[in-house]
Amino acid sequence: MTQPHAPAVRHFASDNYAGVHPEVLAAVAEANVGHVPAYGDDPWTARLQDVVRAQLGEHAVAYPVLNGTGANVVALQAMLPRWGAVVCTEAAHIHTDENGAPERVGGLKLLTVPAPDGRLTPELVARQAWGFGDVHRAQPGVVSLTQATELGTVYTPQAVRELCDQAHALGMRVHMDGARLANAAAHLGLPLRALTTDCGVDVLSLGGTKNGLLLGEAVVVLDPEAVTGVEYLRKSDMQLTSKMRFVSAQLVALYEGDLWLRSAQRANAMAARLRAGIDALGVLEVAQPTEANAVFVRLPAPVVEVLRRRWRFYDWDATDGTVRLMCAFDTTPQDVDELLDALRHALADDDGTRGTPA
Amino acid sequence: MTQPHAPAVRHFASDNYAGVHPEVLAAVAEANVGHVPAYGDDPWTARLQDVVRAQLGEHAVAYPVLNGTGANVVALQAMLPRWGAVVCTEAAHIHTDENGAPERVGGLKLLTVPAPDGRLTPELVARQAWGFGDVHRAQPGVVSLTQATELGTVYTPQAVRELCDQAHALGMRVHMDGARLANAAAHLGLPLRALTTDCGVDVLSLGGTKNGLLLGEAVVVLDPEAVTGVEYLRKSDMQLTSKMRFVSAQLVALYEGDLWLRSAQRANAMAARLRAGIDALGVLEVAQPTEANAVFVRLPAPVVEVLRRRWRFYDWDATDGTVRLMCAFDTTPQDVDELLDALRHALADDDGTRGTPA
Amino acid sequence: MTQPHAPAVRHFASDNYAGVHPEVLAAVAEANVGHVPAYGDDPWTARLQDVVRAQLGEHAVAYPVLNGTGANVVALQAMLPRWGAVVCTEAAHIHTDENGAPERVGGLKLLTVPAPDGRLTPELVARQAWGFGDVHRAQPGVVSLTQATELGTVYTPQAVRELCDQAHALGMRVHMDGARLANAAAHLGLPLRALTTDCGVDVLSLGGTKNGLLLGEAVVVLDPEAVTGVEYLRKSDMQLTSKMRFVSAQLVALYEGDLWLRSAQRANAMAARLRAGIDALGVLEVAQPTEANAVFVRLPAPVVEVLRRRWRFYDWDATDGTVRLMCAFDTTPQDVDELLDALRHALADDDGTRGTPA
Amino acid sequence: MTQPHAPAVRHFASDNYAGVHPEVLAAVAEANVGHVPAYGDDPWTARLQDVVRAQLGEHAVAYPVLNGTGANVVALQAMLPRWGAVVCTEAAHIHTDENGAPERVGGLKLLTVPAPDGRLTPELVARQAWGFGDVHRAQPGVVSLTQATELGTVYTPQAVRELCDQAHALGMRVHMDGARLANAAAHLGLPLRALTTDCGVDVLSLGGTKNGLLLGEAVVVLDPEAVTGVEYLRKSDMQLTSKMRFVSAQLVALYEGDLWLRSAQRANAMAARLRAGIDALGVLEVAQPTEANAVFVRLPAPVVEVLRRRWRFYDWDATDGTVRLMCAFDTTPQDVDELLDALRHALADDDGTRGTPA
Repeated sequence: MTQPHAPAVRHFASDNYAGVHPEVLAAVAEANVGHVPAYGDDPWTARLQDVVRAQLGEHAVAYPVLNGTGANVVALQAMLPRWGAVVCTEAAHIHTDENGAPERVGGLKLLTVPAPDGRLTPELVARQAWGFGDVHRAQPGVVSLTQATELGTVYTPQAVRELCDQAHALGMRVHMDGARLANAAAHLGLPLRALTTDCGVDVLSLGGTKNGLLLGEAVVVLDPEAVTGVEYLRKSDMQLTSKMRFVSAQLVALYEGDLWLRSAQRANAMAARLRAGIDALGVLEVAQPTEANAVFVRLPAPVVEVLRRRWRFYDWDATDGTVRLMCAFDTTPQDVDELLDALRHALADDDGTRGTPA
Repeated sequence: MTQPHAPAVRHFASDNYAGVHPEVLAAVAEANVGHVPAYGDDPWTARLQDVVRAQLGEHAVAYPVLNGTGANVVALQAMLPRWGAVVCTEAAHIHTDENGAPERVGGLKLLTVPAPDGRLTPELVARQAWGFGDVHRAQPGVVSLTQATELGTVYTPQAVRELCDQAHALGMRVHMDGARLANAAAHLGLPLRALTTDCGVDVLSLGGTKNGLLLGEAVVVLDPEAVTGVEYLRKSDMQLTSKMRFVSAQLVALYEGDLWLRSAQRANAMAARLRAGIDALGVLEVAQPTEANAVFVRLPAPVVEVLRRRWRFYDWDATDGTVRLMCAFDTTPQDVDELLDALRHALADDDGTRGTPA
Repeated sequence: MTQPHAPAVRHFASDNYAGVHPEVLAAVAEANVGHVPAYGDDPWTARLQDVVRAQLGEHAVAYPVLNGTGANVVALQAMLPRWGAVVCTEAAHIHTDENGAPERVGGLKLLTVPAPDGRLTPELVARQAWGFGDVHRAQPGVVSLTQATELGTVYTPQAVRELCDQAHALGMRVHMDGARLANAAAHLGLPLRALTTDCGVDVLSLGGTKNGLLLGEAVVVLDPEAVTGVEYLRKSDMQLTSKMRFVSAQLVALYEGDLWLRSAQRANAMAARLRAGIDALGVLEVAQPTEANAVFVRLPAPVVEVLRRRWRFYDWDATDGTVRLMCAFDTTPQDVDELLDALRHALADDDGTRGTPA
Repeated sequence: MTQPHAPAVRHFASDNYAGVHPEVLAAVAEANVGHVPAYGDDPWTARLQDVVRAQLGEHAVAYPVLNGTGANVVALQAMLPRWGAVVCTEAAHIHTDENGAPERVGGLKLLTVPAPDGRLTPELVARQAWGFGDVHRAQPGVVSLTQATELGTVYTPQAVRELCDQAHALGMRVHMDGARLANAAAHLGLPLRALTTDCGVDVLSLGGTKNGLLLGEAVVVLDPEAVTGVEYLRKSDMQLTSKMRFVSAQLVALYEGDLWLRSAQRANAMAARLRAGIDALGVLEVAQPTEANAVFVRLPAPVVEVLRRRWRFYDWDATDGTVRLMCAFDTTPQDVDELLDALRHALADDDGTRGTPA
């Protein structure tokens, strides 16, 4: 196939616009050796268990799945009875970006709370964690938090621990959507387990695709008593892949050494560089602290229009002109600087209309 | 990673024990060029549309998904209202091997009929295609047939056409589970569309993984009027992958040229060689015609035990000792001959107990 | 409202064409005394617990619900994990007459077997009760039998016990759809518990509507360890009624004394009278033993046409002319004799075409 | 059965603590005349169609169902594709009181907005009615409003019309949960259609149980183009009753004449009397305007305790001591005055602690 696009352009739309990290692709090729049993009875999936135990504690068990929505729904179903409910933020991926899969596939009820910076707090959880024993109310059974959050912020270990303690005291369990857990750990300079197992998180959706895999995530059970039937649910939820070795091998490549960390550090550093450049412009409102790999900034509509001629990125809030600019494991300083240059010029051209929401 | 298994052994358990065809892996690597839009807005997915139009007719539209169960459930939901039902055989993959995903995820009712050789007939369909307008009965809306069947048999184009004509006359639609469509086409020496579009099939689950992909299938809509909401359903059914280019590129590699055919021919030829060798032994009962890439044969239990020391394969019917021996795109004549040799010796050793079911 | 129909005609279509038994209606009126707590915290629902304990054993707990489909789905969900399956006959009400509610609402998989006389046997159950631990297969967890069956036949206590012993030995549970349990007990001359609790049945859908209630059934849990979350499931399955006293009072009226038995005996006796009259004609093929309150007989099409001018009844098998004639608690000997007379005359008129299937 | 409770006490917990209006019970008895076809093919259900056409317009079609949750879920499923979502308030019954039935049974996604007085506004709807065509977002397809609201407030016809116009302009449809529609109409002094059909409401859950029925609601389709498959969905959602005449006869009794209005006027008048009495005390904070039949008032905990010795009522907000006091069709002025007397005395006794939230 002839090159179908300009490979030199790296967008700021999502970390899943990036491709596969070369080390990951090499691992796939290396796993392509003859016949091995399907559905997880293979050496790479066995090796993955060692890897997650090393990263996340001796009780950790990984169930490779196919995408983040799948990881979340399998995890939540495994944690909840048919009458269960999940407390999460209004911005949670499970609520806003999965077209109702938790409800439609999982039969789950989400009980949302507003969280201006994307982070749950015990006070916010308390708004929904009540009504235990009332048959009319979907029974709150899980608190689901996203680390790093959908707004690019990061929970401290202390914050996670408080949420876990609260949940456990109420007889609830804690799920972490860790699609960008690596970015949070990189931000905090902590190992993965310091943000999860050590804080009391029960089940983790461990990210892969957004950090350089071709495709692949894992449900990682940290407390085996928190779940039932993960293997059955993975199958009936259509998240079981036959040639599982190729997903497991990627996850091994990512988490066995420090590839997860190197890639996340790079993405975070590029977001920080972008944020610093934007702050230096002195005229733009940035909506959130930049802790992981995303920057949320309000841009005038004409500026957005100019930037979109070259780069893709998402409108975050169409009502106030906030856009999301996200960096990936392969974003370069030059990519960031080119965007900043273009932004500076567009703002200058837009002088007269600056401040008008997009 | 050190080599974790004996790569020289090719099993007879399933075509998904095989790895990735080198041309497919090369296509993945070739697609790994910088950033491209996620979720299908990429050049490889666009190219896939050309490929399926060339193979399956000008109205064909492909929706890449993650596994066969996913393809089937997305297709069937898109074809049916909430009160719909699917007529299929008792051996259909959707009925026996998907842990209820059509029911649990899709909310679909399956109406099964026994089909000794895995093939539906108009008479069999008629046993379930009734009760239209009766609110108490799940409304039959789709006939789903598997090509090649789960029993290694193949529908002729004439047989498919009769089923389609019957279904359409009843106001129903036809879904084909084509996880091994390539094997059927190779057996018949016909292009893919001669077995599908040209016969009146409305929606196709087009296989990939079993014929040499790393991972990937596609829902291919042949008659756009037969479906609604495929794109929404693919997402809510958790079958939408973000880095879709890597699935599409594999499907392009498989179906753009003749890789699908070469691989299927090889698998079929190996099954035929195995069948001929078994027949030549003169003492074993073979359960089905060998048309695609599987042989179903009754083996004495001690023989099964001996063979299992080296090869993996599935018990098909534990009550009568039938096992399934399946060949893949990479099975070699030597693989087959070694199995036949071992079988011959095991039978000789088992002389006294020959004929005792496993 | 002026009388809208000919109340003197009692049809043979279904026991739910009948109205409310006067004693039941009196109980409703008697319960209409001012305010009582909703959703089951009322004296009639409490009284119902005493009644079911007296009838079905000291561990029995009743959960009133709104219809038979609701009773079945609530019971089965409470007995099964999300990956569970139910073994039942192809003629089971849950399979044929509930428009997929077990699948669509319950997320359950049904594994059916053919049962010519409507009764499961251990051999039939064994055809589907396998594959435990295989994630690809919906896990058989419940055997569901209908007593009396949809074909008007009755399981002996010995037969029920064998099915329960088999199921329990396999780690499965037994559900009984007892929409017409009273008819079975009346046929056998045994108390209700002799057919249920004493045989090892775990959960019972206890019928009401077909035996003279206005509306109302109950999930009766016989072994509390067989279920989880019945009260939550009853609510989320939309089977919880606010003014529950009016359902409970009816069930009390039916089962506290012998009304259930008197009504069932009457219906059975009328079916027996009808069957004897048909047999006496000497020319008609009757499809099943008449043990409960239904007769299945093949009638020539012209005869069906004549009878339909006055009476309603269902075609059972349109392919061979079998119709179902069902008697209710209020069917009279005169009703039966009039039908027999009409049948005799129609057959005589149809002399030339006798034997032609409808 | 001996009188099991003190029938003279009428509680303030819910309008479903009340019994059956005598005219309704008479209608049930009157319908108890011999055999009639089941499942709605009966004269009372036919008559109900005339009644709803008279009340709600010539296109209105009524589908009797068993409870309010059932009415809502059947209606919403009939209005939405599998990927659809419903915009409603955080206080909506479908969100808070149905244990997730819309999600679990219906596969629906609810998109909620806060509404301090229980009423949606176009501004509130706009917060969720966006993202059309984005496959990641559950597609907003229905606005569901409750009339009278769960907070005892009432939408004016103008307010309903604005919401309908907005929804229709967006390609969405409008569902009204009319469990207490009669109370709203009584408050406004308007016929039922002035609040529904004439404003553009597409589908109505028409209440019965809360206004004096034994049991029974109806899905009333006002615009036939807004729905598909109501009859199938009613069955698969387990809301189809066999002896439908007894539900239809009750609905006819309620809506054929002015019983609905008389009963609602009485309940509203009692709430107004209660509200006036509370206001006259001069010391209590009342949370909402009292427009329908409920009063929301903050009471000191010791006062709540005293009142609970005699009456039942619900805590509405446990965090601030708000309770809900609800009147029914049979609440008497004496009932209200006795409660007010008791309240006055309890407040006097509580003098020292007055104002402390419960």
